[in-house]
Amino acid sequence: MKYLGIDIGGMSVKCGVVEDGVILHKKAATIRPREQDRVILADIAALISDTLNECGTDRDEIAGIGVGCPGSVDDERGYVRYCCNVNLVNTPLAEILRELTGIKDIRVSNDANCAALGETLYGAGNGAKNSVLITLGTGVGTGIIVDGRLLTGNRSAGAEGGHITIAMDGEVCGCEKRGHYEAYASATALMKQVRAACEKYPSSGLAKYAEQNGIDGKTVFICAKNGDKVAIETLNRYIEYVGCGLVTFANIFYPEVIIIGGGVSNAGDALIKPLEKYVSENVFGAQYNPKIRLVAATLKNDAGIIGAAALCLDER
Amino acid sequence: MKYLGIDIGGMSVKCGVVEDGVILHKKAATIRPREQDRVILADIAALISDTLNECGTDRDEIAGIGVGCPGSVDDERGYVRYCCNVNLVNTPLAEILRELTGIKDIRVSNDANCAALGETLYGAGNGAKNSVLITLGTGVGTGIIVDGRLLTGNRSAGAEGGHITIAMDGEVCGCEKRGHYEAYASATALMKQVRAACEKYPSSGLAKYAEQNGIDGKTVFICAKNGDKVAIETLNRYIEYVGCGLVTFANIFYPEVIIIGGGVSNAGDALIKPLEKYVSENVFGAQYNPKIRLVAATLKNDAGIIGAAALCLDER
Repeated sequence: MKYLGIDIGGMSVKCGVVEDGVILHKKAATIRPREQDRVILADIAALISDTLNECGTDRDEIAGIGVGCPGSVDDERGYVRYCCNVNLVNTPLAEILRELTGIKDIRVSNDANCAALGETLYGAGNGAKNSVLITLGTGVGTGIIVDGRLLTGNRSAGAEGGHITIAMDGEVCGCEKRGHYEAYASATALMKQVRAACEKYPSSGLAKYAEQNGIDGKTVFICAKNGDKVAIETLNRYIEYVGCGLVTFANIFYPEVIIIGGGVSNAGDALIKPLEKYVSENVFGAQYNPKIRLVAATLKNDAGIIGAAALCLDER
Repeated sequence: MKYLGIDIGGMSVKCGVVEDGVILHKKAATIRPREQDRVILADIAALISDTLNECGTDRDEIAGIGVGCPGSVDDERGYVRYCCNVNLVNTPLAEILRELTGIKDIRVSNDANCAALGETLYGAGNGAKNSVLITLGTGVGTGIIVDGRLLTGNRSAGAEGGHITIAMDGEVCGCEKRGHYEAYASATALMKQVRAACEKYPSSGLAKYAEQNGIDGKTVFICAKNGDKVAIETLNRYIEYVGCGLVTFANIFYPEVIIIGGGVSNAGDALIKPLEKYVSENVFGAQYNPKIRLVAATLKNDAGIIGAAALCLDER
């Protein structure tokens, strides 16, 4: 069976024809994010037609369309409450896209959920039945699979794992509350921690490197690899922050696998290995239970398309 | 359909004949917790026979048996890894009880899971599809229902919500790690917080009351109701601790209802109302989503029996 996976981003939309977790053909198009929702969706419908035409796939061959959208989505009703940077507000997306494409089975979910589904079924998760995907990027996103199904919560309002509290009364989060995971574990938070370390230890290798090259998500990993003590300490503390949240997820879900995505995950083993150690040392009941695998995401930019298409596999 | 619900405790076992969440007849018996597992289970099988005889129910009328056990259980295999205070260690409980009773469908789960199932389906949860039960007792127990099914995790090692971290590097938990929810929100932790407040403010109404009456889970509620300022402050901080963990569960699961059980929940509205306010003020996306109901458990000591029987309703 072939499905379409649609990945809505702030400036462009990607569309892929997917079969068994493999993208047969994909195409991207810019959208006009400030237009009315019907105009935006008409652009997406046009992208769908173009994609199908380019690869010579007949519309009748498509069993369903899955759409991943950054923002707040009511999965069950196929309804977008709001979409980050794109003017989809209280939009009955599934209904409109059904009209515009003639394809009946249309599913919609949050983009982090789609990525989790894609990575779990076809990527780093290796088909696990229970998994947690954590993306360490500008913020912290989470997608959770329980017994092979996406965890979304009532009205799909759950899986907001960036906003669990790991340090009561601690750092202020982007949502303005204190102590949230995102305020410690995001790439943004990591860069802030590096900046603070540079200010505290201006003669450190880390500070000198940062002065020459600026600070991004890779800075601390590069300097720690070079043996700078301040960088190693800063990185170790960041590992504890990320690990702390992972242990909370592990204690609640005890998944077979935890998948780390987002920009920071490009650090690979320098991030994954110490995190795996932290989780296995701190998860409750580790002595009685199978080890939780910790892996970096592998599908990268294709996770959204593949995972969106996989929404159609979910029994409702 | 009639089911048997078995609730294993440290010194006694309760057995109930349950139909549609109602206990038709129940009976308790002491057990010999240090005997071999087959001896303990033979005692339980005898209790089952006695219960059925007393209420004139034929064994053929029983569609299944559910067993709730404090400790670590592999639900899928019907296997008890260990049971608190009772010598069930690596015991194939379902298999042995099947032999002893002749009843085929035997399910086993952790007692907090059973309580969550009972309260959600037939008690305070009012049949919710998504719920979280938090028991504030000696420790903090959690039972979680997702889309009508118990969340157990891989090998049923999950739902250890007492060991999520709310305050990194904070108070030491019973499991020896720092900052866990249980170390702040259990009845044990509450009493410790009251003791600390009494030592800090020896002339407070709270300290005087405690000196005369000792400290238990009710102390701070009684003194706060009497208007003592130290008691009110101590209670408010405790509400923040409990609320902080509830918000983490709310952000992950966005359940329809959160049920509070355990000894501390006997405080009723003095606990539930401020907690409900805390959750609605702090849960992510509250402005877009339905309010999460917060309620005290209602089935009390029967939750274990009713919930254990309800294990048999769970599709596997």
